[in-house]
Amino acid sequence: MSSTEHEWAGTLRSEAGRLLAGLGQAAAEAVPGSLTRQQLAAMIDHTVLKPEATPEMIEQACAEAREYGFASVCVNPCYVARSARLLEGAQSVVCSVVGFPLGANVSAVKAYEAERAIADGAREIDMVLPVGALKAGDYARVRDDIAAVVDRCHGQGALCKVIIEAALLTDEEKAIACLLIAEAGADFAKTSTGFGPGGATEHDVRLMRAAVGLEIGVKAAGGVRTYEQALGMIRAGANRIGASAGPQILAGIPA
Amino acid sequence: MSSTEHEWAGTLRSEAGRLLAGLGQAAAEAVPGSLTRQQLAAMIDHTVLKPEATPEMIEQACAEAREYGFASVCVNPCYVARSARLLEGAQSVVCSVVGFPLGANVSAVKAYEAERAIADGAREIDMVLPVGALKAGDYARVRDDIAAVVDRCHGQGALCKVIIEAALLTDEEKAIACLLIAEAGADFAKTSTGFGPGGATEHDVRLMRAAVGLEIGVKAAGGVRTYEQALGMIRAGANRIGASAGPQILAGIPA
Repeated sequence: MSSTEHEWAGTLRSEAGRLLAGLGQAAAEAVPGSLTRQQLAAMIDHTVLKPEATPEMIEQACAEAREYGFASVCVNPCYVARSARLLEGAQSVVCSVVGFPLGANVSAVKAYEAERAIADGAREIDMVLPVGALKAGDYARVRDDIAAVVDRCHGQGALCKVIIEAALLTDEEKAIACLLIAEAGADFAKTSTGFGPGGATEHDVRLMRAAVGLEIGVKAAGGVRTYEQALGMIRAGANRIGASAGPQILAGIPA
Repeated sequence: MSSTEHEWAGTLRSEAGRLLAGLGQAAAEAVPGSLTRQQLAAMIDHTVLKPEATPEMIEQACAEAREYGFASVCVNPCYVARSARLLEGAQSVVCSVVGFPLGANVSAVKAYEAERAIADGAREIDMVLPVGALKAGDYARVRDDIAAVVDRCHGQGALCKVIIEAALLTDEEKAIACLLIAEAGADFAKTSTGFGPGGATEHDVRLMRAAVGLEIGVKAAGGVRTYEQALGMIRAGANRIGASAGPQILAGIPA
């Protein structure tokens, strides 16, 4: 590591420390008192990422996205083209995943995977950052890996969300990941893949929102199955929810 | 699906049925009475695929591969180049993974990922087949997806193993997967990613060996942690073991 990189790593660590120290004192955010069904649906990525998902399950998810007005269907790359056809003319877009769920691919492959998914019709890409490089303190590699995908997405008119897989990280690592996501110009920081050892927590969402500020989105994903959980995530600072239980979440809205 | 494809699917299903019916009556294979430490080590892919693995852990795994004479280190694509440098001149080669662990990428991205990993120094590629397409009975897509990676591997002088993620499949699906693996010209059928709902079982290894015959390898991976388990897999028909507990497995050899 060069001395400039060392210095930069030190700066990131102090900034993360300041963020974490300030978390307790953060003024309560302007939180929504209530959400209409439509408003909540428009914040949900309706998610089908199980490896055994069949084309039939994708068809059902796309029909539900149309019916409820979800933000997107979030599907594996092999189902992007099919989903894009099924959602033609709908309000919901197609979201796909890159380097998923381990994040341990080379950057060139991640960028190519994003390019292909967007060419197939995806409008949003959820990528996984390189967790091992983050843990090893190789922040330049993490930032460059994210930027490689962000640049490809933006060049083709798609949004890029970056999954930090929070359950594998310390609070300092989560904060640094978010600072790197902001630096790389991504559109969202996202908590979890849903395949790791844990899902979204309100604590993590609060931390991530503090770290990325208000210009960048925060997506809570993994284990969000009820209206109460979804509302808790939104109150903690999330503006997007990833869930396979979208219809169930909406059904829980109090009458 | 064309009528030729329908006919082919029917043939595959009957062949799978015949294989499964014959499993009970299969003559006991010529099983090794015992294995030397060296023989067993040479059958083990020493595996580090956790997303949070750091370069330091990769260095340790490569040192152990050299020390024990493992067949390979099996690492994520982002660590192939480093592992290849660390194993220069060693007997152990670098194995990497493609479309891992969900198998739900498009074939062109899988092929590119294999190409890059081989260019970075991998000599063996463990790919995951498209589980959803298999479950949907789209056998042509499964075969073509495998063939896209096999062809790239063979064109660059690397072996290709194909993971069926057995825990997600019925016995008929496992048998059909193995027939498709043979048809696509792959070198090994492999039980599991280690990230799915279950690992290798002797039943699955026996079934897979019956389905692929003796020309193609069978790799048992996922949950193999002791010498007794490894020997059970080998007696059931495996000729390669994927494990993160290689040193522990060897330590269990009876004196």
